[in-house]
Amino acid sequence: MSALLTDLYQLTMAAGYWCAGKTGEVATFELFVRRLPPNRNFILAAGLDQALEYLLNVRFTEEEILYLKGLPQFHRVPEGFFDALRAFRFTGDVFAAREGTPLFPGEPILTLRAPLLEAQIPETFLLATIGFQTLIATKAARIVEAAGGRSVVEFGTRRAHSPDAGVYAGRAAYIGGCTGTSNTLTGMRYGIPVFGTAAHSWVQSFPTELEAYQRLQDLLGPATTYLIDTYDTLEGARRAASLGRPMWGVRLDSGNLVELARAVRTILDEAGLTDAKIMATGDLNEYKILELVATGAPIDSYGVGTELATSSDAPSHGAVYKLVELDANGSRRFTAKISPDKSTVPGAKQIFRYPGHDIVGRASECFLQGCEAMLRPVMLGGEIVGHRPTASEARQYARESLDRLPKKYRSLFECDPPYRIEHSAELIQLTEEFRRSER
Amino acid sequence: MSALLTDLYQLTMAAGYWCAGKTGEVATFELFVRRLPPNRNFILAAGLDQALEYLLNVRFTEEEILYLKGLPQFHRVPEGFFDALRAFRFTGDVFAAREGTPLFPGEPILTLRAPLLEAQIPETFLLATIGFQTLIATKAARIVEAAGGRSVVEFGTRRAHSPDAGVYAGRAAYIGGCTGTSNTLTGMRYGIPVFGTAAHSWVQSFPTELEAYQRLQDLLGPATTYLIDTYDTLEGARRAASLGRPMWGVRLDSGNLVELARAVRTILDEAGLTDAKIMATGDLNEYKILELVATGAPIDSYGVGTELATSSDAPSHGAVYKLVELDANGSRRFTAKISPDKSTVPGAKQIFRYPGHDIVGRASECFLQGCEAMLRPVMLGGEIVGHRPTASEARQYARESLDRLPKKYRSLFECDPPYRIEHSAELIQLTEEFRRSER
Repeated sequence: MSALLTDLYQLTMAAGYWCAGKTGEVATFELFVRRLPPNRNFILAAGLDQALEYLLNVRFTEEEILYLKGLPQFHRVPEGFFDALRAFRFTGDVFAAREGTPLFPGEPILTLRAPLLEAQIPETFLLATIGFQTLIATKAARIVEAAGGRSVVEFGTRRAHSPDAGVYAGRAAYIGGCTGTSNTLTGMRYGIPVFGTAAHSWVQSFPTELEAYQRLQDLLGPATTYLIDTYDTLEGARRAASLGRPMWGVRLDSGNLVELARAVRTILDEAGLTDAKIMATGDLNEYKILELVATGAPIDSYGVGTELATSSDAPSHGAVYKLVELDANGSRRFTAKISPDKSTVPGAKQIFRYPGHDIVGRASECFLQGCEAMLRPVMLGGEIVGHRPTASEARQYARESLDRLPKKYRSLFECDPPYRIEHSAELIQLTEEFRRSER
Repeated sequence: MSALLTDLYQLTMAAGYWCAGKTGEVATFELFVRRLPPNRNFILAAGLDQALEYLLNVRFTEEEILYLKGLPQFHRVPEGFFDALRAFRFTGDVFAAREGTPLFPGEPILTLRAPLLEAQIPETFLLATIGFQTLIATKAARIVEAAGGRSVVEFGTRRAHSPDAGVYAGRAAYIGGCTGTSNTLTGMRYGIPVFGTAAHSWVQSFPTELEAYQRLQDLLGPATTYLIDTYDTLEGARRAASLGRPMWGVRLDSGNLVELARAVRTILDEAGLTDAKIMATGDLNEYKILELVATGAPIDSYGVGTELATSSDAPSHGAVYKLVELDANGSRRFTAKISPDKSTVPGAKQIFRYPGHDIVGRASECFLQGCEAMLRPVMLGGEIVGHRPTASEARQYARESLDRLPKKYRSLFECDPPYRIEHSAELIQLTEEFRRSER
């Protein structure tokens, strides 16, 4: 994986660290979200596995090094630095919350400790990988919550921010509780259930809608799902019903979903197809689904695309990656940024989770009773430690973790007061000492 | 490139077309945006080159075919279909607007004509590629417009929807008028200028801010840009000024940018550094930049990250890919979708651009005088035709095209009335005939 997939300043800084003789210094960075987007009460961590995959495989090719040497920013940099890039491997340690963990602002999703160059260069990739998947897993958890036990399938690759974003959106949405995805590559790569039968173009490509339906049934048998809104939804439902079993059901993609679902349910039931399902799609989100569920509309499952794969009401959540400690020449220095509105808390941290609230303390602290330490070692000395959970295991863990969270925090609206996060006495003391000492 | 990076239903439909003996039918699909997001008066086409790259290289591997055969949706599909996937190549024709073309709702960005399977499978990838880059190029054009001639650099990879999205966001932002990007891989891959010097962690990693600045100047010489808000912005400006030349300037990343820019300008000027520049970054967008420019704040250049790389006020624009014609057994059939709110217009189209307005007509029409036909052949029989413009050429074309657009449509707010798009008499006639004939 290309080490050039990063902001240029990571590489100029790397050159600067090398020139300043700081390559032996060991940095600790924390990746976290500063504040929650509107209407969120938690974020759901995801993307760790792709972050680890990157750290295992990040390399500079000779062509890439040649490119860097041609940039004016590197004209004063000695050849030794480029040799260091040739030999570049990630050899550090990573501590992280499991994928599927609900987290809160300021809590590290991941803590990385490595020689300064190895810690700096991955910043951009780690933020984009973990930030994006966490964003989508969080959005999925909201939509699944709204659906109240009905199946939600992720359909958004076409509107995702590039085809690759679609692949990762499908994975993250599954971790967040979706039943599966329409993205076939996501299905194959991560062992995630895939869904999909036919689009409007299928119906349009046959001389009549009935012929299109007949062909679909021949192909898919009991998985057949008829898309019934190409011409006239109720007429489509009648045509589908006329073909009888085998079928899974029908899909509504436009119009007044409440009224149509009721009318279509009647058509199916009157044809004796009481076990046929109704799926709804078409610019849905958690609020629209909440309303559909509240009306009692007979909809069995939801497909959500654009708004899920882009987290469209909150397409970013300001994840950051901040230096908190630096070990140089045998001594440790704590660091933080104290600029207005963007200050950070110094020192490596641990999240101690009690039922219903968290204490963020220093990584060196022990809270033995009644709590769980959420950050666990996942990589030591550049090698994976322990089991790498599958997407399915992460999804299961997310489900269990969300069920343990007091229900009010799973609301689609902001809780007041928010989930309680306190800093430990030791962390407060360190912060105060840092601020006093800072020039 | 993996043909599995698509919605499963494209593949089930492909199997269905194969089973129905429709592989010889030739389909024409159009990719377009249904309506403009809020406050937009145009979209700026981008992403075509990656779409063509995909069409040139899309393949099924044996492993992927094996995966498909294991899915229940393919259990009834004969082996012949999988042989067709093994031999799958895109052999069709593509007509498209040049990257950098301002376009309007309903106007095809791309028209694809190919045997049904080859036209159906790419839908998802094409939408995600062209949809996303068009979204970002459009957003960039707005931000560049707001900056009124000052340089805008794209800094958003860390907040992009996956690292790959960051690579394409950097490319699209450049086409939209940005001066360059922070994404190094984008720079190397597409020959785009790259920018970046140092982050807060650089400053924090040295015992004092002054030492960090001195080291940066040693490294970068005349490109040196001091990030001055890690501890105290004005103190940072004084420290930077104390080091004198060579330097490019300073960067402000927080606080009241208007007040700080003025105070920092004074500090630099009083140190005789009247040619030192001030760059502003930190959660900027087109509206904030418009306001900063209006106040006359002495800011020379802007770095925009999150809001640009995610088009955060409009993270999608509903691009669709619709079947408009089908040639089967020697006869042509026009198709459209007539479902409520989502109807489409049948028949392959051409965009005839007159000064200040467009006529969308049938692809077979000729409008000889005073207009330009915007859709040109870019691929015939699966092979590229003509020159593939570089990102830099696309950027130049965008600049010229936007300059030709009446200025009111470059406003950051919605124009009323919108840009005038008319359908030709032939296209209106075809639409009416289709609606009358449709069962």
